[in-house]
Amino acid sequence: MRAPTIRDVAERAGVSKSLVSLVLRGSDQVRPEKRDAVLRAARELGYRPNAAARSLSEQRTRTVGVLLNDLRNPWFVDLLDGLNSLLHANGLRMLLADARLNRRTGQDPADPLLDLRVDGLVVVGTLPDPAALGQVAERIPVVLAGSREPAPPGVDVVAGDDERGALLVAEHLIGLGHRRIAHIAGYGAVGELRRRSFEATMRRHGLAEQVLVEPSDMTEEGGYRTTVRLLSRPDRPTAVFAVNDIAAIGVLSAAEELGLRVPRDLCVVGYDNTSIARLRHVWLTTVDNSSHEVGRRAAQCLLARFEGAGGAGRVQLATPTLEIRGSTAPAP
Amino acid sequence: MRAPTIRDVAERAGVSKSLVSLVLRGSDQVRPEKRDAVLRAARELGYRPNAAARSLSEQRTRTVGVLLNDLRNPWFVDLLDGLNSLLHANGLRMLLADARLNRRTGQDPADPLLDLRVDGLVVVGTLPDPAALGQVAERIPVVLAGSREPAPPGVDVVAGDDERGALLVAEHLIGLGHRRIAHIAGYGAVGELRRRSFEATMRRHGLAEQVLVEPSDMTEEGGYRTTVRLLSRPDRPTAVFAVNDIAAIGVLSAAEELGLRVPRDLCVVGYDNTSIARLRHVWLTTVDNSSHEVGRRAAQCLLARFEGAGGAGRVQLATPTLEIRGSTAPAP
Repeated sequence: MRAPTIRDVAERAGVSKSLVSLVLRGSDQVRPEKRDAVLRAARELGYRPNAAARSLSEQRTRTVGVLLNDLRNPWFVDLLDGLNSLLHANGLRMLLADARLNRRTGQDPADPLLDLRVDGLVVVGTLPDPAALGQVAERIPVVLAGSREPAPPGVDVVAGDDERGALLVAEHLIGLGHRRIAHIAGYGAVGELRRRSFEATMRRHGLAEQVLVEPSDMTEEGGYRTTVRLLSRPDRPTAVFAVNDIAAIGVLSAAEELGLRVPRDLCVVGYDNTSIARLRHVWLTTVDNSSHEVGRRAAQCLLARFEGAGGAGRVQLATPTLEIRGSTAPAP
Repeated sequence: MRAPTIRDVAERAGVSKSLVSLVLRGSDQVRPEKRDAVLRAARELGYRPNAAARSLSEQRTRTVGVLLNDLRNPWFVDLLDGLNSLLHANGLRMLLADARLNRRTGQDPADPLLDLRVDGLVVVGTLPDPAALGQVAERIPVVLAGSREPAPPGVDVVAGDDERGALLVAEHLIGLGHRRIAHIAGYGAVGELRRRSFEATMRRHGLAEQVLVEPSDMTEEGGYRTTVRLLSRPDRPTAVFAVNDIAAIGVLSAAEELGLRVPRDLCVVGYDNTSIARLRHVWLTTVDNSSHEVGRRAAQCLLARFEGAGGAGRVQLATPTLEIRGSTAPAP
């Protein structure tokens, strides 16, 4: 079976090849009835524009590449929803690549996307080496979404406001009467911002002496081990704020193992409002990053640059909210 | 800034353009020292082959499209690992698309991948309309991975052996002394195969009278509601086998809410061995689908068809194993 060509479409619609070509490029120079005839013929024949050929002639694929830092942690799902809805409304498609998988096989993570000449790149989450994106950004628009690392010149950043999120958590726990509050911290810019804001909020409430901070690797196992250590102290905390949901799950396990009931004996708060935090069996109080909004704004940044907006990269922060669930309650 | 061209690479390496072209196509007709010089020059210049142009001349993009049915349920992560490792070893790259997102915006889910002319397509999980892939399969190799729906002609299927998995669960529970065992069933071919095998195993052990089957929508909420109903029966089961991990999480929540301790008062088994089942706070006995192996075999099917193997589609099943964790114990 031969794939239908532009010539077949033209024949069926009773128009010239160049008119079909104009219609397929979205030209507004074509009369509506001609346009409809062409689109109907294309649909009926199952015609698929050859994106590779179109890419050469127009220098555009109308495709945005999305590089995910790690598919295993599903925090990015709402972000993709927001990104996709706005891109699609503008006639752009989205293709994804998994940076972790590409790195494991020694590839430069964005290569499969760049080789197919995507029109723009959205990097979701923190990459080990965001500076490497500088070269890419000289050729196509690049946006970092959900990461707070320093961006190369010309790269826009959209993320949740981590300082605001950590402040909401600290004030929630302090408002419930907790004094001795531990923070299981993370790494990178995100980890740093959350920790500093937590500490500053505690200080503002005169609780500087009550601050307990323990580093972690942001995994469930890390949250578990750190909590076992924290809870075996004589002056054990009554509440734990973990840097992300997955570490908070480790806190829940440690509490369970040590015979402490959540939230009666220990309150636990996570960060990210992942699907795991929403499970009834977990029902974790956590910070919602407004990820849908982050995705939508990332799309806006790309669209603005497609339309010629240049200049230095901008940083935009979406406002997080606190999702209060079953893992927090008044202090004993 | 102008992107470096093949001419720049040739100049820097001190060779002809056509030699560069031969090297970049992986020809073994080039002397190693020349090949190394070309590759070094390409690397130093940051040369990126124009995949769109190459696609036109060679009719290949060396890219495999992977269509995921829904990014929100992370059961497919190991499958992608297996797929990626073998594809990469054969010089092929992988790009992903999310069928759910594409459908929500009214696109045909595989379109963004097909428009960029991927060389082959792997569909991961169950699509609402797998028959639509028949047309695609007439042009490029298509493999269904992790789904058991009937495939169109020429499409290979690789999945876990659901009948074997359900048998392992039933025999594990029967071996622990459970008699009254409930199954929270799912839908589609996968749901059907698991249910029928569970029932057959119970019958073989003379427990046909003890079988309790309740339908569900395979979500956490569905598992929860069904379990609340099951546990309020006078002859309540001592063990529940849920069609997937996420429904099993709903079972755990229902048990907790009704004051039943797992595994002492109620045993629970899931299916898929997702990252959620491995959380210490959940620690669910479940069936491991050998997803890495499913991914690897899906890659083998594609590679065989790239090399010209034709013929009707084949169905291959990987052998699952039981992961025994903390949610099962001897019957009271």
